[in-house]
Amino acid sequence: MPPRYFTREELLAAPAGAFRWEFAVRLQDVDAAGIVFFARIFEYFHDSLMDYLEQHGVSMPRWLADGVVLAPIKHAEADYIAPLRFGDRMAVELCRGWVGETETIVGYRIVFADGGRPAAVGQTHHVCVDRAGAARAALPPPFADALRRLPGAG
Amino acid sequence: MPPRYFTREELLAAPAGAFRWEFAVRLQDVDAAGIVFFARIFEYFHDSLMDYLEQHGVSMPRWLADGVVLAPIKHAEADYIAPLRFGDRMAVELCRGWVGETETIVGYRIVFADGGRPAAVGQTHHVCVDRAGAARAALPPPFADALRRLPGAG
Amino acid sequence: MPPRYFTREELLAAPAGAFRWEFAVRLQDVDAAGIVFFARIFEYFHDSLMDYLEQHGVSMPRWLADGVVLAPIKHAEADYIAPLRFGDRMAVELCRGWVGETETIVGYRIVFADGGRPAAVGQTHHVCVDRAGAARAALPPPFADALRRLPGAG
Amino acid sequence: MPPRYFTREELLAAPAGAFRWEFAVRLQDVDAAGIVFFARIFEYFHDSLMDYLEQHGVSMPRWLADGVVLAPIKHAEADYIAPLRFGDRMAVELCRGWVGETETIVGYRIVFADGGRPAAVGQTHHVCVDRAGAARAALPPPFADALRRLPGAG
Repeated sequence: MPPRYFTREELLAAPAGAFRWEFAVRLQDVDAAGIVFFARIFEYFHDSLMDYLEQHGVSMPRWLADGVVLAPIKHAEADYIAPLRFGDRMAVELCRGWVGETETIVGYRIVFADGGRPAAVGQTHHVCVDRAGAARAALPPPFADALRRLPGAG
Repeated sequence: MPPRYFTREELLAAPAGAFRWEFAVRLQDVDAAGIVFFARIFEYFHDSLMDYLEQHGVSMPRWLADGVVLAPIKHAEADYIAPLRFGDRMAVELCRGWVGETETIVGYRIVFADGGRPAAVGQTHHVCVDRAGAARAALPPPFADALRRLPGAG
Repeated sequence: MPPRYFTREELLAAPAGAFRWEFAVRLQDVDAAGIVFFARIFEYFHDSLMDYLEQHGVSMPRWLADGVVLAPIKHAEADYIAPLRFGDRMAVELCRGWVGETETIVGYRIVFADGGRPAAVGQTHHVCVDRAGAARAALPPPFADALRRLPGAG
Repeated sequence: MPPRYFTREELLAAPAGAFRWEFAVRLQDVDAAGIVFFARIFEYFHDSLMDYLEQHGVSMPRWLADGVVLAPIKHAEADYIAPLRFGDRMAVELCRGWVGETETIVGYRIVFADGGRPAAVGQTHHVCVDRAGAARAALPPPFADALRRLPGAG
């Protein structure tokens, strides 16, 4: 089965899942327009994924240092629903997952921590390659296992 | 006509257009994996758009300071084709555009400055709103005019 | 009494203080040389100060939104002692303070969370000005009170 | 002769030198307080130094890829004189230099491109070490030569 990207609606309607990464918007995340600069949203997505993996026994720093495989991003996208401002307390929910042989898609939803109103949704598509970047490689088992615990990925 | 996002293939095949924003990958744009961090690609897209607008008489700083309208991003996406490394000399081409009454989509292609091999494509979808963020607003004429000069947007 | 900057040695020898802000080095904090980019250290300093103030009842976001005063930085410096790498678990200690009528200096020490070996020390010097930026202003009492609780600032 | 840091006054009074790196403040360089976030100033310093070295035949990317030595930063500092806002057209002047056997200090002044009013001054102190980071190493000749062309470093 080839991967399929989630729609905005699917990500908005997805269950919260077991994992929730909380953060507060920093002074320097906001730009001259007074709201979080759109590219920062992708950093929030990524930071939450790193923390999720760490909590599931996949240490990306060790993986990078020792590793035989890498999982670079092939596609990333975000839909912006409500602006984020300095000090806003938010949570990233890893609300959807898809896991294939050599690739994975992770779906994210950023919500206001108090009340759960959605501010953004999005996804990142990762493809496993060998260290030379020359060939596709299978997702390492602990990585695939962690991702299969995401809503819809089992 | 409702907006439609460009496909990866359309962005890869699009003409270069008249505008080209050159840059070199900075030390701090690269992450611990040795390649440009994926979220930086969106900064390159945005920096090139600001420069394009400036060159076409639309000063976003003045617009923000004086302005009655804002053009926040509703959707952004990128496809990553080749990794970028420290010192790589690149160019962003604004290779596609779509302009509606109150919204616009800008398509980008990042290529290696020497040779033109593509490294990434993507798009940002902006929606004009009044200063309170409460209602849609028409794209200001100089802004719409600049965007209509993008390939496919006329 | 005019402000005096702390020396590298004073910051290294200072007590840890009551506050400690823990973090892990992110993928994107590291640059093409494989270590944390030097300017990120200042972000760690600042993030820890914001969190310290928040925990002492000073909400900088609210202060900025409502505020009659601002506390821009007049001087910042850092000494780099050991490189930080992706995944390193660190702590920022607010280890020294100096509080005057209209200005304050905060001293920081970044240590490896496990073992306490120092990686960097530094300081930021803030000057309170009125909202127009035209005149010096007294440090607001809750802000001054929080800062006076730093080691050496009482 | 041991290195000595430049004073704020020395950096303000130093000649402009032959090199000038121009830039415009980006939307995302500005923070929630409406002015450039203080840590960005260090990125401007560093970006200008990389460009200066490149123009003098020292390609830091190639040096990093091939290199036997590294020049990590031991100390960095900045004095903030005037706030920078989105769209401000600025120039970094490499206005002072000091070159020793194994280390160097570079002095910077950021001025408004139109008129030359200073906005910030600062310096970075780099120490050359072998690739393992274990021992001091001599500054490679092309690197030392480029730095000796800075005002006061000859």
